[in-house]
Amino acid sequence: MLALIMAGGSGTRFWPKSRRKHPKQLLKIHGDKTMIQHTVDRLQPTIPPENIFIVTTAEQRAEISAQLPQIPSQNIIVEPIGKNTAPCIGLGALYMRRVQPEAAMVVLPADHYIGDEDAWMKQLLNAEKIALASDALVTIGIQPTHPATGYGYIQFESEAIAIDSVQAYRVKTFAEKPNYETACRFLESGDFLWNSGIFVWKISLILRKIEEHLPEISDSLNSIDLAIGKPGEKEAIDTAYRQFRNISIDYGVMENARDVFVLPGNFQWNDLGSWDEVFKISTKDEHGNSTGDGHIHIDTEGCLIEADGKVVATIGLRDVVIVDTQDALLICPRERAQEVKEIVEILKRRKLNHLL
Amino acid sequence: MLALIMAGGSGTRFWPKSRRKHPKQLLKIHGDKTMIQHTVDRLQPTIPPENIFIVTTAEQRAEISAQLPQIPSQNIIVEPIGKNTAPCIGLGALYMRRVQPEAAMVVLPADHYIGDEDAWMKQLLNAEKIALASDALVTIGIQPTHPATGYGYIQFESEAIAIDSVQAYRVKTFAEKPNYETACRFLESGDFLWNSGIFVWKISLILRKIEEHLPEISDSLNSIDLAIGKPGEKEAIDTAYRQFRNISIDYGVMENARDVFVLPGNFQWNDLGSWDEVFKISTKDEHGNSTGDGHIHIDTEGCLIEADGKVVATIGLRDVVIVDTQDALLICPRERAQEVKEIVEILKRRKLNHLL
Repeated sequence: MLALIMAGGSGTRFWPKSRRKHPKQLLKIHGDKTMIQHTVDRLQPTIPPENIFIVTTAEQRAEISAQLPQIPSQNIIVEPIGKNTAPCIGLGALYMRRVQPEAAMVVLPADHYIGDEDAWMKQLLNAEKIALASDALVTIGIQPTHPATGYGYIQFESEAIAIDSVQAYRVKTFAEKPNYETACRFLESGDFLWNSGIFVWKISLILRKIEEHLPEISDSLNSIDLAIGKPGEKEAIDTAYRQFRNISIDYGVMENARDVFVLPGNFQWNDLGSWDEVFKISTKDEHGNSTGDGHIHIDTEGCLIEADGKVVATIGLRDVVIVDTQDALLICPRERAQEVKEIVEILKRRKLNHLL
Repeated sequence: MLALIMAGGSGTRFWPKSRRKHPKQLLKIHGDKTMIQHTVDRLQPTIPPENIFIVTTAEQRAEISAQLPQIPSQNIIVEPIGKNTAPCIGLGALYMRRVQPEAAMVVLPADHYIGDEDAWMKQLLNAEKIALASDALVTIGIQPTHPATGYGYIQFESEAIAIDSVQAYRVKTFAEKPNYETACRFLESGDFLWNSGIFVWKISLILRKIEEHLPEISDSLNSIDLAIGKPGEKEAIDTAYRQFRNISIDYGVMENARDVFVLPGNFQWNDLGSWDEVFKISTKDEHGNSTGDGHIHIDTEGCLIEADGKVVATIGLRDVVIVDTQDALLICPRERAQEVKEIVEILKRRKLNHLL
């Protein structure tokens, strides 16, 4: 199996720690490795570095190479602009097809948290089995634990099908992020899973499926393919990306394809969409605070403190996020951490570019 | 009139901005001047710099000279250790007696806030009149606005006495910081004022009163007096301070003296005993926040933010103090700002001396 890591995100939800040039996947959000280092380390027991490909932006390329010296530099593919997952996966697949066209590829975001890496890898290998045994598109769904409104959902048919002795569920539909009431109904129905953005399929198959469902994207991909390894390669990619429409693989291909299966992943998973989600997966002290060393607390509970070694003293705080960096400091209740996006919008309006 | 500014405080209530070497009086707590600069500027229209004396610690001397270049260096008197106000005032008076023994001196703390400087100076000049016309010790009392438990109180006799056409009240007693119930009774009775720590008397008189009520302190002061201007001056001061007992002028002298008068000061006054008191006197924006430039707020009210130019973003905060410095950050509800003292105690216990 080969792996394609999508690392194009320019996330603003971790401001002030995340910045344009240092988005979430390049930061140490939990533990002592960056998110993309965690992602690669999680794959490496099974997939050697030369079979791991990364699609990213020109701005992040050098930092990714520096953080992942084991990944061959030709495996780091640059998108000139983001056009959502369908073009990104198509581009990656072109390069991977040259290695092993009939192998399976796993597509995964660079910046998600996985709690139980063994259970996760077990499901990836099950998905690979199905992908190799059939012309199926496989996705990993996550058993929902609460009516989250920040995730997409996958509805599946209740009867499992065994493919090469792996129990899989045929996908009925992909649902966009629901409102709270809809999310509650999804949860009650029992036949919805969270869409983790992890996909497994044969490399040659996904390119054929793109050709079938997104022919104009396929045409542009073919122009790139003809130029790979030649002087016009970068120009061909630039031209194609100007033409690509912005469309996700879920809606562009999977929603319309036959033989789409989901494997329920029963490992702890979190897309770490806000500081509050980071708090949820973090190690807490006896007062339920997630802090580094050198924090001094009086009557403080449920706080997340990130201050890069600075001593932070707090008195009488409950459930507050505190993130301090060299030039900016954020303080907000944990339950409002998603409003950090709005702070970034204010910074943009005020043209405080040095803080973005 | 001469002035004696007591600038020995090593206050910890403004941590992390205040440190051992940079106590409150040397900091810009409000406006663009330090507290001691405000104090000297307030005196200067009436009292020339050569008549302003400052008693401080060896550690603060150089910084005080730098902040107040107009004050002659021989007017900055160093105490080897703090022994409360009676020795401090006695020491200052020794030097001031050499300038004009029969002049009045005003004694005042270096780090208080005065709202109406004209009304304040008017009362000082009234106090000077009384001090020069009689052998009276005069203190300025502040009309209480609430049952504060952080101030001493002065009880006065209800009938005013005119001395040289100034209406003054004879002091009945000095009361230490009361508990809340007692403070409420003080306020209701109508015959209590806050003790501002501002005193006016003839220079020669206060030394005679110290001789009368604190004879052993007077003896040590006399030894210093004999050494002033001679090679043994510093040693004489050191010896005397080893012998001085720790006692305030209120309890050592004024509580026992005859002819002690209080003038009610009806100017805005605040001893700025905590960040919350600083908030009270500060200029607020339309959301009731006291912040510098470059603060970015969503749904934030009643907050005090001090961050030395750093951008601070807050979401959904009410009545919180945020003070950021190079190496330490404090966050606490305004109403618990006095607990900063306990943070400093924790730092001491953990021997985090670089933060003290």
